[in-house]
Amino acid sequence: MSRVSVEVHIEVQTFYAQQMRLLDALDIEGYVQTFTEDGITDHAHRGEKVEGRAAMIAGANAALPRYQGVAVRHWNDHYLIEEAGENTLNVTYCSLVTRTDAEGKVTFEPTFFIEDVLVRVDGRLYTKSRTVHRDGQAKPVARAS
Amino acid sequence: MSRVSVEVHIEVQTFYAQQMRLLDALDIEGYVQTFTEDGITDHAHRGEKVEGRAAMIAGANAALPRYQGVAVRHWNDHYLIEEAGENTLNVTYCSLVTRTDAEGKVTFEPTFFIEDVLVRVDGRLYTKSRTVHRDGQAKPVARAS
Amino acid sequence: MSRVSVEVHIEVQTFYAQQMRLLDALDIEGYVQTFTEDGITDHAHRGEKVEGRAAMIAGANAALPRYQGVAVRHWNDHYLIEEAGENTLNVTYCSLVTRTDAEGKVTFEPTFFIEDVLVRVDGRLYTKSRTVHRDGQAKPVARAS
Repeated sequence: MSRVSVEVHIEVQTFYAQQMRLLDALDIEGYVQTFTEDGITDHAHRGEKVEGRAAMIAGANAALPRYQGVAVRHWNDHYLIEEAGENTLNVTYCSLVTRTDAEGKVTFEPTFFIEDVLVRVDGRLYTKSRTVHRDGQAKPVARAS
Repeated sequence: MSRVSVEVHIEVQTFYAQQMRLLDALDIEGYVQTFTEDGITDHAHRGEKVEGRAAMIAGANAALPRYQGVAVRHWNDHYLIEEAGENTLNVTYCSLVTRTDAEGKVTFEPTFFIEDVLVRVDGRLYTKSRTVHRDGQAKPVARAS
Repeated sequence: MSRVSVEVHIEVQTFYAQQMRLLDALDIEGYVQTFTEDGITDHAHRGEKVEGRAAMIAGANAALPRYQGVAVRHWNDHYLIEEAGENTLNVTYCSLVTRTDAEGKVTFEPTFFIEDVLVRVDGRLYTKSRTVHRDGQAKPVARAS
């Protein structure tokens, strides 16, 4: 593992800005396109692993009713980025999730710690795998590196 | 529209760090100086458009009583920056707004999505226009780019 | 005081990502190692100044019971970084602090404004002093620079 350049740092920050906006706009098709075709999302805290874009779309559509009438926002912080290969990055970060209703009232989902593997294909980043850990559970998931 | 350099990214992040601190310190004069003389603030969700520094100062002073006895903080995320001209940048981001009272209790304003046009004059950034969209309203305002 | 390079900006962001993760993991030994041996933490709002790693460890251990059964997260924003010497940086930022319990319920500590002095020793950053101001108190602590 080695430290990455400032260019890669900004590339990664911009990738997440775009991906989180698609997620928060509930643009499922757009969001899933930011994963590789065989991309994996693993919600470790509820033992729910989804593999491949098609399965991700089905899962996301099933979850949509939960977000009717509220605006969801993911607020990320503390990105740590490591080069795991020429076009492979290991990225970890924390996420705070808000839900704002029609009256403007804000409520909170739990906070999370996330481990992503990103790959660069034709000069563009994609999530190859995402492992989501919910905070507040028995096993501490916050890690320094 | 083209992607911007890492230098511009950091320049923009630093601009907002400075501007948000002035705003949160209720330093109205200082905050308004970070806009161009003809700068515009458009609170699209309540159809309230303010043009020029003088009008901005009047509007901000009228809103001040609302923030008596609380410390306001804006927490921004997911900056996307595009070069719209040699010294013009289109910047969009999300904002979470907290109010902390004398006892340290934190309450929340709605979350927001903001579209800014920044211009660089004599090597320094200014906000030329700011359009603020409140989250949770009928029309979704989160956008990927 | 002079503006810092993009490399220093990313170096500082990464330093805080690592330091905040150690703090939030309640890894007291690891966290204290990110301070210089004579590092100081000054909670100005409660007149509590702790000097040196040994005193910091004792103080942190005494505070630990407060965080039993909850996951703490610090969410920082608006870093302003100034070079105060060849290997000395003055860094200020804001911090929002969440506590997530076993059920995933999120509650909030007050928000804070922090002034750090960082020093670079053998190519690595350490906190030499940290002054923490709680928001919402009589004297406004938000500052633009």
